[in-house]
Amino acid sequence: MANTRYAYVRDFELPDPLLPGVFMLLRLDGHSFHRFSDKHEFIKPNDVRALKLMDHAAKDIMEEYPDIVLAFGESDEYSFLLRKATTLYNRRQSKIVSTLTSYFTSCYVFRWLHYFPDVPLQYPPSFDGRIVLYPTQKHIRDYFAWRQADTHINNLYNTTFWALVQQEGQTTAEAHATLKGTYSKDKHELLFSRFGINYNKLDAQFRKGSVLLNEASPMTIASVPKPSSPMPMEGKKEKKAKSKKAQRQQHQKKAKIEVLHCDIIGNEFWDGRPEILEGDK
Amino acid sequence: MANTRYAYVRDFELPDPLLPGVFMLLRLDGHSFHRFSDKHEFIKPNDVRALKLMDHAAKDIMEEYPDIVLAFGESDEYSFLLRKATTLYNRRQSKIVSTLTSYFTSCYVFRWLHYFPDVPLQYPPSFDGRIVLYPTQKHIRDYFAWRQADTHINNLYNTTFWALVQQEGQTTAEAHATLKGTYSKDKHELLFSRFGINYNKLDAQFRKGSVLLNEASPMTIASVPKPSSPMPMEGKKEKKAKSKKAQRQQHQKKAKIEVLHCDIIGNEFWDGRPEILEGDK
Amino acid sequence: MANTRYAYVRDFELPDPLLPGVFMLLRLDGHSFHRFSDKHEFIKPNDVRALKLMDHAAKDIMEEYPDIVLAFGESDEYSFLLRKATTLYNRRQSKIVSTLTSYFTSCYVFRWLHYFPDVPLQYPPSFDGRIVLYPTQKHIRDYFAWRQADTHINNLYNTTFWALVQQEGQTTAEAHATLKGTYSKDKHELLFSRFGINYNKLDAQFRKGSVLLNEASPMTIASVPKPSSPMPMEGKKEKKAKSKKAQRQQHQKKAKIEVLHCDIIGNEFWDGRPEILEGDK
Amino acid sequence: MANTRYAYVRDFELPDPLLPGVFMLLRLDGHSFHRFSDKHEFIKPNDVRALKLMDHAAKDIMEEYPDIVLAFGESDEYSFLLRKATTLYNRRQSKIVSTLTSYFTSCYVFRWLHYFPDVPLQYPPSFDGRIVLYPTQKHIRDYFAWRQADTHINNLYNTTFWALVQQEGQTTAEAHATLKGTYSKDKHELLFSRFGINYNKLDAQFRKGSVLLNEASPMTIASVPKPSSPMPMEGKKEKKAKSKKAQRQQHQKKAKIEVLHCDIIGNEFWDGRPEILEGDK
Repeated sequence: MANTRYAYVRDFELPDPLLPGVFMLLRLDGHSFHRFSDKHEFIKPNDVRALKLMDHAAKDIMEEYPDIVLAFGESDEYSFLLRKATTLYNRRQSKIVSTLTSYFTSCYVFRWLHYFPDVPLQYPPSFDGRIVLYPTQKHIRDYFAWRQADTHINNLYNTTFWALVQQEGQTTAEAHATLKGTYSKDKHELLFSRFGINYNKLDAQFRKGSVLLNEASPMTIASVPKPSSPMPMEGKKEKKAKSKKAQRQQHQKKAKIEVLHCDIIGNEFWDGRPEILEGDK
Repeated sequence: MANTRYAYVRDFELPDPLLPGVFMLLRLDGHSFHRFSDKHEFIKPNDVRALKLMDHAAKDIMEEYPDIVLAFGESDEYSFLLRKATTLYNRRQSKIVSTLTSYFTSCYVFRWLHYFPDVPLQYPPSFDGRIVLYPTQKHIRDYFAWRQADTHINNLYNTTFWALVQQEGQTTAEAHATLKGTYSKDKHELLFSRFGINYNKLDAQFRKGSVLLNEASPMTIASVPKPSSPMPMEGKKEKKAKSKKAQRQQHQKKAKIEVLHCDIIGNEFWDGRPEILEGDK
Repeated sequence: MANTRYAYVRDFELPDPLLPGVFMLLRLDGHSFHRFSDKHEFIKPNDVRALKLMDHAAKDIMEEYPDIVLAFGESDEYSFLLRKATTLYNRRQSKIVSTLTSYFTSCYVFRWLHYFPDVPLQYPPSFDGRIVLYPTQKHIRDYFAWRQADTHINNLYNTTFWALVQQEGQTTAEAHATLKGTYSKDKHELLFSRFGINYNKLDAQFRKGSVLLNEASPMTIASVPKPSSPMPMEGKKEKKAKSKKAQRQQHQKKAKIEVLHCDIIGNEFWDGRPEILEGDK
Repeated sequence: MANTRYAYVRDFELPDPLLPGVFMLLRLDGHSFHRFSDKHEFIKPNDVRALKLMDHAAKDIMEEYPDIVLAFGESDEYSFLLRKATTLYNRRQSKIVSTLTSYFTSCYVFRWLHYFPDVPLQYPPSFDGRIVLYPTQKHIRDYFAWRQADTHINNLYNTTFWALVQQEGQTTAEAHATLKGTYSKDKHELLFSRFGINYNKLDAQFRKGSVLLNEASPMTIASVPKPSSPMPMEGKKEKKAKSKKAQRQQHQKKAKIEVLHCDIIGNEFWDGRPEILEGDK
């Protein structure tokens, strides 16, 4: 067969399984989203439509991949925690990072019109993804604390920055200069004294980011294997498709994603939801 | 700073540079596209709209990433060859595979309506990606020969299969049974004798797949570094965005993608385009 | 400089850091030691000299590398546990696996004459090494339990096998046939009824393998960095050598290796030595 | 079986195959050899005994592993080129780097007494190893040129340095100061004018390093698979041992290692021995 003679090129595909027994953290970041937000005139400092769109795409991916037990999003980034014992795609790194990043992107574009009915998408946005492995529950808590602390720092800065620009007419250069060297409490003070803004009263969505949880117990959700079949023939695909469909329906019944804007740095969030980190003990 | 205490979690991000001095081949495959093509009623055995959409997304990615010097697509898969000396994203594996798969997916969804004006997209499609490294020109030629030989085999099978189903009223099970154990020449014969189809006269797009070339010499295109900046502050981003825009404009002038449906197994294609494989000698 | 023009070849050395925050387990196995034991007429089923030599080499390596907190040996293999937080050679995989395997081998040959004064070494023996990462204390306990259970199984088999050969005059083929399909208790029974051997009274060294502990608390031993310097000039080396010597002396005072032949499957061993697994909490 | 319950720990051993179709270069470096050479009073600037011992160990490893087609050594380092198509240990990285480094070390200690009959080995020396992949013949030539240029630079420096110390009575600090900022020709000049030494007349072994070649054509030597068998039972080992012995004898007849001290930067060496680089074309 003509094909056989070339098939040796497959030997160059090397295995890339990730270590078992550790948490996988998938982090997605918008690619050149500064330009993207300019082109689509995102409202500053926070565009609720853009944030809700991100949340929706994150919700979609959690429904499709029930092994994701927690997600956190802010601005143009999202982090997804896969349960420790996941065997998704046999833990193959490239397969997981590419497929999940692809699916998130697809959902983002697919749902654009719903959140931006009056702003046509001008060009296709993209995201990059990476997987980081964390061995312990503490690492996971610290990772999410790191992202939420970052949300706070960025949002406080941006809120003050854009108040200076939009309400005081400073140029962006002037606003950066005004904020240079200031501490958190200085910005709180500035917001309150000059603009009458009590930062802590602002929408929690902006201050805390978005926390997505799968309310279905991760213990009862079977990980659905979705093996890649490099070159399947028509007939085989047909059979597989059917059983996948059945599995999918099972999924969609089970996954129920909740969106919160709460603190995840302190103990309260975690103490009340031990199944997120301990599910695979 | 609240953030500092958690920042150690970044130490778990391990470097993943790919070996220099070898070709990178990025392969994308549609995820569960059998189901996707059913749901969107793709015409069998080949849906020109779906193929053109794939080609357009491939064209988009080649315009955005001029380090891609050749692409080949068939059905729901696409292969992209990056020039040997590319330093795209410092050759970081996860960054490249995730960003390019994301961008291709985004383009696919973005352009759906143009190719399927009457078929609303029912759910977000996704693709998986992987990078395979090939050391020599011969490997690259054999890789592409492998894919095109596969195109031929699959298309001949599917063309015959669907003729039996659509024109003779066989069930899919019957059609598979009819074709079991047949050789290429048997299928050619069957197509001609029963359906009057001369396989070799069918559209080259179906028989040969799509070959995409960047007509701008890869020698003159500078690889544009697009460094990821994990947590850049507002101000810094602004400056970068501007210079990127300048770079981008430069790109869009240079990249000119040509779509062919020609043979790439024989020598003719390669002999006339030595710059594809030798560009980085 | 003549050298500069070629120095780019160093760019092909890729980083290979191991994930932080997990235990490293280094496993060494004798290479073709069946042949080696034949050529040097090791006593069957257990050669005390050979086992003591292995133990000594293991002791040497634990003195040299105080980040090794536990070791287990049987037959021609040894397993070394590095403390979870070790930064030995910046956790570079090739550096660690090659250097430690090299040092163990060197000690084995260096000390040969002491254990085999009448058996000249006929050719240089070698070992292979690999590093496996384990995230939790449970994994480590199960790993060592796995090895000690294996010691038991192998030793019971070999003890019975060689009794049949040496005391009953069976050929090795006959002895294998005699033992085929037998369970543990059958072999115990056979040893006792035919040879008057109470297996449980045999030397614990044979039944349990060797357990090596560093009695100095791993908490108080500073990990001594031993950076590789690819092409250091004479003068620089001199200075480093001195400070290393100082560090070494410090080591040799601190590391005190204890050799035990005790059970490590049950809880007792571990409960009494929490510092092995918890040292880096 | 007691063992079964723990056997899952093997799942943490991840595959580490090296890319096919590229050259493997194994580089060994003495570990803390400055101290080692001091303790064993190596003659400065070059100790012929020590160099010959290194060469012998390199010869040993080339006889044992005929897939090594070229080696280059200087001072306490050695580089080994494996033929491009080698399937040694299925190209598993840890297995190759650990086993070959172990064997080299073993040979070094094993043959110590032969080269240093009056200098007892005071402690076990060790080496570190790493594997670097090179795609093309040019890379390999440049790698070896890099090492030989380095030999020249180091040896010229050391020869002058020790002449100043040994013949002029300078302290090492003074000698370094004398040489600071000097070029090659300054050192040549200094050697000649102060010590009457014509550098180019010195032993080629010191100036050029050692080049080892396998005179048996690499084309006719079958790569001998030496699979690792994690926990083989006695009986199985016996059979394997025999067939290995047969293979080994075959080896020892075929491999014939030649030691040269010639230039490998220019074309002459390579032009006359195309089989080194082209053997696997």
